[in-house]
Amino acid sequence: MAYSGDPILAEELLFRPAHSLIDQSLHSRLGVETTNGDGFGVGWYGEGPVPAVYKSIDPAWNDRNLREIARQIRTPLLLAHVRASTGTPVQRSNCHPFRYGGWLWMHNGAIAGFRDLKRDMMLEVDPALYPEIEGSTDSEALFFLALTYGLTEDPPDAVARAVGFVEELGRRHGVPDPIQMTVATSDGESLWAFRYSSEGHTRTLFYSTGIEQLRMLYPELEVLHELGTDTRFVVSEPLRDLKGAWNEVPESSWGLVRRGADEIRPFSPVWPA
Amino acid sequence: MAYSGDPILAEELLFRPAHSLIDQSLHSRLGVETTNGDGFGVGWYGEGPVPAVYKSIDPAWNDRNLREIARQIRTPLLLAHVRASTGTPVQRSNCHPFRYGGWLWMHNGAIAGFRDLKRDMMLEVDPALYPEIEGSTDSEALFFLALTYGLTEDPPDAVARAVGFVEELGRRHGVPDPIQMTVATSDGESLWAFRYSSEGHTRTLFYSTGIEQLRMLYPELEVLHELGTDTRFVVSEPLRDLKGAWNEVPESSWGLVRRGADEIRPFSPVWPA
Amino acid sequence: MAYSGDPILAEELLFRPAHSLIDQSLHSRLGVETTNGDGFGVGWYGEGPVPAVYKSIDPAWNDRNLREIARQIRTPLLLAHVRASTGTPVQRSNCHPFRYGGWLWMHNGAIAGFRDLKRDMMLEVDPALYPEIEGSTDSEALFFLALTYGLTEDPPDAVARAVGFVEELGRRHGVPDPIQMTVATSDGESLWAFRYSSEGHTRTLFYSTGIEQLRMLYPELEVLHELGTDTRFVVSEPLRDLKGAWNEVPESSWGLVRRGADEIRPFSPVWPA
Amino acid sequence: MAYSGDPILAEELLFRPAHSLIDQSLHSRLGVETTNGDGFGVGWYGEGPVPAVYKSIDPAWNDRNLREIARQIRTPLLLAHVRASTGTPVQRSNCHPFRYGGWLWMHNGAIAGFRDLKRDMMLEVDPALYPEIEGSTDSEALFFLALTYGLTEDPPDAVARAVGFVEELGRRHGVPDPIQMTVATSDGESLWAFRYSSEGHTRTLFYSTGIEQLRMLYPELEVLHELGTDTRFVVSEPLRDLKGAWNEVPESSWGLVRRGADEIRPFSPVWPA
Repeated sequence: MAYSGDPILAEELLFRPAHSLIDQSLHSRLGVETTNGDGFGVGWYGEGPVPAVYKSIDPAWNDRNLREIARQIRTPLLLAHVRASTGTPVQRSNCHPFRYGGWLWMHNGAIAGFRDLKRDMMLEVDPALYPEIEGSTDSEALFFLALTYGLTEDPPDAVARAVGFVEELGRRHGVPDPIQMTVATSDGESLWAFRYSSEGHTRTLFYSTGIEQLRMLYPELEVLHELGTDTRFVVSEPLRDLKGAWNEVPESSWGLVRRGADEIRPFSPVWPA
Repeated sequence: MAYSGDPILAEELLFRPAHSLIDQSLHSRLGVETTNGDGFGVGWYGEGPVPAVYKSIDPAWNDRNLREIARQIRTPLLLAHVRASTGTPVQRSNCHPFRYGGWLWMHNGAIAGFRDLKRDMMLEVDPALYPEIEGSTDSEALFFLALTYGLTEDPPDAVARAVGFVEELGRRHGVPDPIQMTVATSDGESLWAFRYSSEGHTRTLFYSTGIEQLRMLYPELEVLHELGTDTRFVVSEPLRDLKGAWNEVPESSWGLVRRGADEIRPFSPVWPA
Repeated sequence: MAYSGDPILAEELLFRPAHSLIDQSLHSRLGVETTNGDGFGVGWYGEGPVPAVYKSIDPAWNDRNLREIARQIRTPLLLAHVRASTGTPVQRSNCHPFRYGGWLWMHNGAIAGFRDLKRDMMLEVDPALYPEIEGSTDSEALFFLALTYGLTEDPPDAVARAVGFVEELGRRHGVPDPIQMTVATSDGESLWAFRYSSEGHTRTLFYSTGIEQLRMLYPELEVLHELGTDTRFVVSEPLRDLKGAWNEVPESSWGLVRRGADEIRPFSPVWPA
Repeated sequence: MAYSGDPILAEELLFRPAHSLIDQSLHSRLGVETTNGDGFGVGWYGEGPVPAVYKSIDPAWNDRNLREIARQIRTPLLLAHVRASTGTPVQRSNCHPFRYGGWLWMHNGAIAGFRDLKRDMMLEVDPALYPEIEGSTDSEALFFLALTYGLTEDPPDAVARAVGFVEELGRRHGVPDPIQMTVATSDGESLWAFRYSSEGHTRTLFYSTGIEQLRMLYPELEVLHELGTDTRFVVSEPLRDLKGAWNEVPESSWGLVRRGADEIRPFSPVWPA
């Protein structure tokens, strides 16, 4: 779940919605896994240029500290993630979002055959970046590939090249459909979201309709007047059932959310030369 | 889940069955809660007269240490429990089974209005036992009431009086149906199980059919030849789908499992005089 | 450690000082225990009237989340505590500071013979407050006794009566010196500190010299210009070695820190009538 | 701490000695770090050919589960380790002992400049072994280098080559004294211990005097009659003060402990050709 908009109390984002992310951790409706109890993380921009990350290996629904700090944190840009491990250990360093400098990254999905592909992915990571890798997941490896390919300069291109590298690697190792992913990444100003899978059948990703348009549809809905006009949510599952509020990000595409300028574009991997 | 029979590797009990307790922690089918991710515990009799208890606040499905020790522990009597908190904190001292001396106790269900009834229940606990209470749950309070009423001498009578006390307390405090419970308790030789609720609609409890009878029904099933003839399981949910293998403990009754002598009797609370 | 003054980043309070509380958790110099690795807690006033509490059972020096949120939280009043258990379980509900409504409470020291005294202390707690007790420590029991005796109306009187009750209880149970304590408590505006023990030999407690006076002593010390003139620290151990900066709270006394009006007064228990 | 000898209750090894490993976790006397509160681990041989490992990120002195299982486990060969992190995260996958197949490995010390050397060490690991690496420590990397060089065939040679590789790598990267280590490793039959550092000034390592000899020295000491004659301890710090009981493993040497045949030999790194 990602939020971009006017500074808002994290509690409003994490605990208030009818079908909040915390609720999803216990009862996901659209996810591949119905329980996401293998740790969670929240990253947000607040004081200073470096985003803060709060991560835990306890189930999100149980974390009393999360409830406490969510009532104290105001932020214009927040990423939150609940994890269902696909095999790598449940440990803080494997929880999303991952951080590098002022950037955050989170990933739903998996790299198939990661055990076999991992070494080559690691070798491809810029040696200057390599020591910054903290955990052991496919998701962080993908992040560092994207960083290697210039994520901080041109995110869509860097992700396209990272995905292309993994596609090619999968082909070499006989892994038929190596990539399944929705990704959100941010530098604190802009938020990029990606939806792609090798097989062309990617888990869901939605973005919220503009607040002004929603206010016209639901003039009586108070919560819409509490949210600023720049508000945008990007989520794996709608946070509440509200007709017209959620739009699917199309297969094989990426989107950019930024104050006053959102866009959606097709995404295709760039294979290594 | 409770096991009584020939000494067996804990792994066989906890991880082997198709619908094992560990699996139930993630996907319960019959429980009120579909996820039991708020800690778990295992108690067993092995070296020495005092049973060991291993408890954790992590979800059982994630606990690597549990897998490790389950491969090293042989026991003729094991109790295991996965918890879905009904409000009290997720902490080791609130995980079942609870232990007092050579006794173990675990409880599925809840005492309604426990916040209001707790103080009077605590006052009723024998002052000599009071300092042994470690946690804050209704389940442990019920255990100590039963101990106060002579659990170690006559378990069915002590539980009947403990339940009667809570029924009467509920009536006094205007709590209509205060008790919902399945309970298993043991001294290492015998295993008692109870099924009772104020409303007469108690969560499920099953005991397994005798192994010799099952072998006749399923001569080809290898697992039945690995289990001793004294084997008895008491469970909230069947561990595998096998027609004729599981028998419901009737409403308002208690059962006793012991080498060579099992019985089921009606249970009714004994109200305070 | 308690801070009262201009709103400041929690990081400045928790991690910056040469001999910070986090450092003390690993290497205490004055405490009875040299390692305080049995959990910790931070409580602070920020958004809304209810203070936030962040607590963990991990050693404070290892908590990466604490470092993250300390960089995001600004507060005019913060209490922080590192714990060395005196026997009660290491669990979140036993970590200080404890909270009731808008009040925070933390305690260094112990109630001797608590196992024996606990039941009577619990009985003395106002039945309306009793359900709010979450943990099992002597420190929280003392807090609820003080609440029972009117902490929110007249803290010094309430603490004097709570201590008097325990002194009398100790005498009745043959516990010679039942109380050893330094306590800090706050409602978000004022901060009260207590230093008392039955034996008249209490662990250390210090308060910091006024900033203006310190600036005259150390005009070159930059950190003194970053702190507001209302700054006051109350600590078990000096946060840095600086001659003239730390003043011992005398034996058997209490102090009040509040914007523009600090005082220190003698403390003596008020025994039950 | 490593034990080899007659099967014994783990509790006797972990909790009984005056200055046990658990006690050392809180108050080390000889270690570089006085507190080893950043996780711990125990590995032992028992049921089946694969050793069990129990690891936790909580301080060892607080782990109630460890006390429980230590009373239930009998083993002829046990390795235990308390950790003071040198920078890598405190997470289960970074706790010693590490396991590969039937082998255990633990390491006290550090590889200097590991952030810079890590990538080259990882590249050197046999690609077939690479996917088995679970954590992010220098100690596990050294283990996998030794496995790459034939640890399971000829431990002293494999460790000599692993150390030689790191020495050479340090020289290339301008790290003057890259290795500081005491290592214990076992296949369940034999126990090898190594003491070596680039600077020739290695942290302490001791082995215990033969039980029969000790019995002659201390005929009145009962504990010596409970231990079998094949008993051998290898420890960083003596487990109790007993003159003549502990012998320092010399600088730059390795030792082998095995039923009826112990030896100590000089150790020197084998540099890459």
